[in-house]
Amino acid sequence: MKTVHAYGTASASGLLAPMDIQRREPGDHDVEIEILYCGICHSDIHQARNEWGNSIYPMVPGHEIVGRVTATGSKVRNFAVGDLAGVGCLVDSCRNCPQCAAGDEQFCENGSVGTYNSLDKQGQPTYGGYSGSIVVDESFTLRIPGNLDLKAVAPLLCAGITTYSPLRYWKVGKGTMVAVVGLGGLGHMGVKLAAAMGAEVSVLSTSDSKEADAKRMGATHFFNTKKEDQLAQLRGRFDFILNTVSAPNSYDMYLSFLRTNGTMVLVGAPPTPSAVTGFNLILGRKSLAGSLIGGIRETQEMLDFCGEHGITSDIELINFSQVNEAYERVLKSDVKYRFVIDVKG
Amino acid sequence: MKTVHAYGTASASGLLAPMDIQRREPGDHDVEIEILYCGICHSDIHQARNEWGNSIYPMVPGHEIVGRVTATGSKVRNFAVGDLAGVGCLVDSCRNCPQCAAGDEQFCENGSVGTYNSLDKQGQPTYGGYSGSIVVDESFTLRIPGNLDLKAVAPLLCAGITTYSPLRYWKVGKGTMVAVVGLGGLGHMGVKLAAAMGAEVSVLSTSDSKEADAKRMGATHFFNTKKEDQLAQLRGRFDFILNTVSAPNSYDMYLSFLRTNGTMVLVGAPPTPSAVTGFNLILGRKSLAGSLIGGIRETQEMLDFCGEHGITSDIELINFSQVNEAYERVLKSDVKYRFVIDVKG
Repeated sequence: MKTVHAYGTASASGLLAPMDIQRREPGDHDVEIEILYCGICHSDIHQARNEWGNSIYPMVPGHEIVGRVTATGSKVRNFAVGDLAGVGCLVDSCRNCPQCAAGDEQFCENGSVGTYNSLDKQGQPTYGGYSGSIVVDESFTLRIPGNLDLKAVAPLLCAGITTYSPLRYWKVGKGTMVAVVGLGGLGHMGVKLAAAMGAEVSVLSTSDSKEADAKRMGATHFFNTKKEDQLAQLRGRFDFILNTVSAPNSYDMYLSFLRTNGTMVLVGAPPTPSAVTGFNLILGRKSLAGSLIGGIRETQEMLDFCGEHGITSDIELINFSQVNEAYERVLKSDVKYRFVIDVKG
Repeated sequence: MKTVHAYGTASASGLLAPMDIQRREPGDHDVEIEILYCGICHSDIHQARNEWGNSIYPMVPGHEIVGRVTATGSKVRNFAVGDLAGVGCLVDSCRNCPQCAAGDEQFCENGSVGTYNSLDKQGQPTYGGYSGSIVVDESFTLRIPGNLDLKAVAPLLCAGITTYSPLRYWKVGKGTMVAVVGLGGLGHMGVKLAAAMGAEVSVLSTSDSKEADAKRMGATHFFNTKKEDQLAQLRGRFDFILNTVSAPNSYDMYLSFLRTNGTMVLVGAPPTPSAVTGFNLILGRKSLAGSLIGGIRETQEMLDFCGEHGITSDIELINFSQVNEAYERVLKSDVKYRFVIDVKG
């Protein structure tokens, strides 16, 4: 075992402070990664504060991890010391069930192993990326395109794949009329990715201050859904709506913005249910769906796509001493558009 | 014009009584059909009583029509006098928009023309199948397989296509684990059709009295959703749920019965919204969708499929004098499983 410096929380207070954790020595199939950058995901806050009721303490959050390989197990084939490497939300799964076989490890029927706040196959708690290094099976380690700004790559490992996966699953491409609801950490990645896929992207927001950024990121249109006159233009307009909002919102209203055969996919999970009227789905054969991150193979595909298209996250770089303050700002949506911790900073 | 004997309602009382209506002489592309049987759909009652707020009086309901061709226009190619013929929910559409081009006339962007309670392209009200004859463009007239019991074919024109279309659109086939929620006019057709497509069908009902019928129609399993011990067996069980219930019901509960990537499709439209929790869709990439009847090409495909598989509706045959009583029994779900009017009876 190796002692590694980390930043974590001892209790549901969620206040983060320095702590030491133990990392295993790399096994035959493991990659040891010196962590350089780690993004802050809203779910880090939910879990640090036990808002989902399943927290294990002490907890070291972080599942948007990029760094450099410092050691490899004897049977590792795809990574060498010195390579860039990334780790997302998952570090293991059963690898045998139909979902794993299909590359959808996020839906592993025997329970995938989360990068933190999870128990690994030996029953040991997993610790995330707010730390100096991590050891991960190479099957769950991602290759990072060399042409991208590394610190701005980190959020791709969660926010990137969470938005890329539904865009691919529902076959968004050239000419698709796409709306992205909410321009935050998830939404801003959704805009960049959908635009790069050739879609005509609209951003639906409640804040006019987001318009310039939305268009810089690739949106063609911007609509303020607080303004009645703008709502009137949205009826039956979109083939696909990516709803990234995690505050309660009206699914019925957004369904009215879909064309025949259109789909709205939720990637934000409000704490309370929303009303859905059957007629709003029946008239136009519409669908309301959800999507959860993505599998490892698809995460690699997303990173390669971002490399080809020069796509990264818009970030604010901070160091560990600023994490607690950053959490408060995330809760106020006061970040453009993702905090990333400079682990060596 | 020709005077035709019919049964209709003069007002939102919805009480049906004999009346005379005018039918046009067949135009070049028209087929004149002597109506032999017409099914009673729950939507007939909603519209007769103006429960959807869009009723035109006097109204002659009925859109599950079968009969025999008595005259054809000079340019009619697919029908001859003496042929069996059917008419479903639609008698016209714009025929030019993308939806019509795709064969989805039910979603015509310029407004399809309903078989009754609609205005045709000349602005004249349409009258339905509770009548002695009807004149319809051959493009909206269906061929009826000769091997089926004609009176039991009538409900296929609405209840049949309403359940067939989503089963096809969501690719139900051999090995698909299907649940049909509710065993009424729609549900009993859903069971027969899904079983004939090779799916393993379960019926979810709140009445044990439906079990024997469900299994006779092709269901392998029957679950009473009022019984807690049976609910426990349903979690994550189905690839596809066909929800035919038009009374308020819990979408969240049924979504929990879906497997990863599963879809629940609504073909019944409760009058009030139902709560949907985002997490229930996100965890398992599930979809909640709706479906509305089907296009003309697909309706013909459904009729041909029923001919091949010997599928018809379970019906109770009545005559016009029993229609008002039948409406009351439909409202109490007291029919096995569709009333059909013997128009010559």
